[in-house]
Amino acid sequence: MSELSTTTLFDKPDAKLGSQVHAAATIVDGLQINNWDRNVLEELRAGGISGVNATCAVWEGPADTLKAIGDWYQLAAKNPDLMVLAQTSEEIRQAKIDQRIAVLLGFQNTSSFGDDFRMVEVFHRLGVKVAQLTYNIQNLVGGACYEPEDSGLTRFGRTIVSEMNRVGMLIDLSHVGNRTSLDAVEASVAPIAITHSNPTWFVENPRNKPDEVIRAVTDAGGMLGCCLYPLVIGGKKTTLDQFCQMIARLVDELGPERVGLGSDCTRNWDTEYVGYLRNGRWQAEGETKATWPEWPEWFVGPEDFPRLTDGLLKVGLDETTVRGVLGENWLNLFDDVFTGREV
Amino acid sequence: MSELSTTTLFDKPDAKLGSQVHAAATIVDGLQINNWDRNVLEELRAGGISGVNATCAVWEGPADTLKAIGDWYQLAAKNPDLMVLAQTSEEIRQAKIDQRIAVLLGFQNTSSFGDDFRMVEVFHRLGVKVAQLTYNIQNLVGGACYEPEDSGLTRFGRTIVSEMNRVGMLIDLSHVGNRTSLDAVEASVAPIAITHSNPTWFVENPRNKPDEVIRAVTDAGGMLGCCLYPLVIGGKKTTLDQFCQMIARLVDELGPERVGLGSDCTRNWDTEYVGYLRNGRWQAEGETKATWPEWPEWFVGPEDFPRLTDGLLKVGLDETTVRGVLGENWLNLFDDVFTGREV
Repeated sequence: MSELSTTTLFDKPDAKLGSQVHAAATIVDGLQINNWDRNVLEELRAGGISGVNATCAVWEGPADTLKAIGDWYQLAAKNPDLMVLAQTSEEIRQAKIDQRIAVLLGFQNTSSFGDDFRMVEVFHRLGVKVAQLTYNIQNLVGGACYEPEDSGLTRFGRTIVSEMNRVGMLIDLSHVGNRTSLDAVEASVAPIAITHSNPTWFVENPRNKPDEVIRAVTDAGGMLGCCLYPLVIGGKKTTLDQFCQMIARLVDELGPERVGLGSDCTRNWDTEYVGYLRNGRWQAEGETKATWPEWPEWFVGPEDFPRLTDGLLKVGLDETTVRGVLGENWLNLFDDVFTGREV
Repeated sequence: MSELSTTTLFDKPDAKLGSQVHAAATIVDGLQINNWDRNVLEELRAGGISGVNATCAVWEGPADTLKAIGDWYQLAAKNPDLMVLAQTSEEIRQAKIDQRIAVLLGFQNTSSFGDDFRMVEVFHRLGVKVAQLTYNIQNLVGGACYEPEDSGLTRFGRTIVSEMNRVGMLIDLSHVGNRTSLDAVEASVAPIAITHSNPTWFVENPRNKPDEVIRAVTDAGGMLGCCLYPLVIGGKKTTLDQFCQMIARLVDELGPERVGLGSDCTRNWDTEYVGYLRNGRWQAEGETKATWPEWPEWFVGPEDFPRLTDGLLKVGLDETTVRGVLGENWLNLFDDVFTGREV
């Protein structure tokens, strides 16, 4: 990473251009995992966000996932001025016009399907448009980024990929193991996304992806959503300029339409939830209690999206490319994948 | 396998000795997966069986397993003259005196634990004394005999093994993958069983076990339960003599106390159930409908256990060894494992 100071974020020679581009773009965040309420929705609106893949299940099985989705329906019913549950790119574009947030429900695991491939269509009909194949540890579908061994995509995993292709649910590889990721790209007849990770050449970390995996995904028409979670950017000291330089290099290497954002915002949670994310129910909590990391001062939540627009322009990306990265690339991918496939 | 004719089963020069040994032995079957009712229990009593590891879950998750266990409590309540739900070897010995069947509840999968290691103690308290780590396909715990790739024992799998050791639940590797099996033997601080498989040198089949796995299990104080399911004995044409010669060789190679029986009886099911066993909910049923295999004429169900006693004596095993294989070895293993371990 370059050694530019964080103070660059406060120099805004193109502030006006930044505002214009930000206002014109349809901004879509590839992943947020907030504890959602009206305040959080207002943070997204303040950030100019029109669409978001909102995680509604991580370790949950089918029954608990139904409850979580029921909570989402309640939130939407109570905040119609601020949000709408959406299933298409068109609804996200409309949400921008209406100044609302279009929420696509998403899973960060396939535990919600239990052991039953039929649950893919069930949850798709309930509004789930994105599902990550595995979360941190081995599951019925395949290996994960923190599991020492990666089984590859299992036989059940192949059934799930095929069923997701059929109904038009976007496959996400962010927390998936590398071997399973490569298997999934090969097995899928639709493009695949990494909604919230960075390249390992930016920060070496099990949650980030080697070139081989990123290339496999983008060569097959998929996308990488660059992630702001402190762990995967190298901690809070990493600068906005460094983050945007990474994006510029990815745009150069992969093509402007293959790169997006997936902030991984974790707003409004208490520390208990980070323990749940780490341990689920598969192990007892360790002696050191898990805590949330500190975010960089230039990005603490959805309200800071305009800074990303400024930063991307500042590293020299043109307006069309910036609009693509900010969300329009996601819209194109959704249009492509959500139609479903014959399998 | 040797080429002896099946007609040897009808020659019973030692029929009287066979009856005496059979009557004296405490007979324990390492696994049966019947559709249990009063008639099936009577078949076991006719076969002289005093204890059995009875499968009560294969693909079921926690909630469905609770229902299955509820059904068992009902069966026990309605047939107190024929059966008792048991948790110790002592209860099996008492059941022999009372001419009842002592049923140990068992799982052929760890799906009943869901993703929660705490469920091991929960189900143990409900009477589950044996659990196979995986059933045919990859699960959260590890790889399985019909999954092309074997992840080995996962991180969750290590938690489960440790918890089973702690509460005193016997680990079963019958349908488990070889790599996961070796990992489990290494991870476990208590002996482990293969309740119902044969060596691959007898019949080459994914459900049978290579010497390396059998040796690892028995060297660590565990046991192999020799299995009568047609698939793993080479089909219905295999003779009683061939089966008993296999046992004699295993007794010779592994020691007389390391070998038992796990018939895998599948009484009273319709053909739909074999489809469920094959496909669970992880794939759609294929074009060819699964059907039950034909059993050899010398062993079609629990009533035929006396023939095994005759066969084992006929291949030259001494009375003590035969009694061990028929059930007393299981009793000793249960005594050892069911006490639990400090982990």
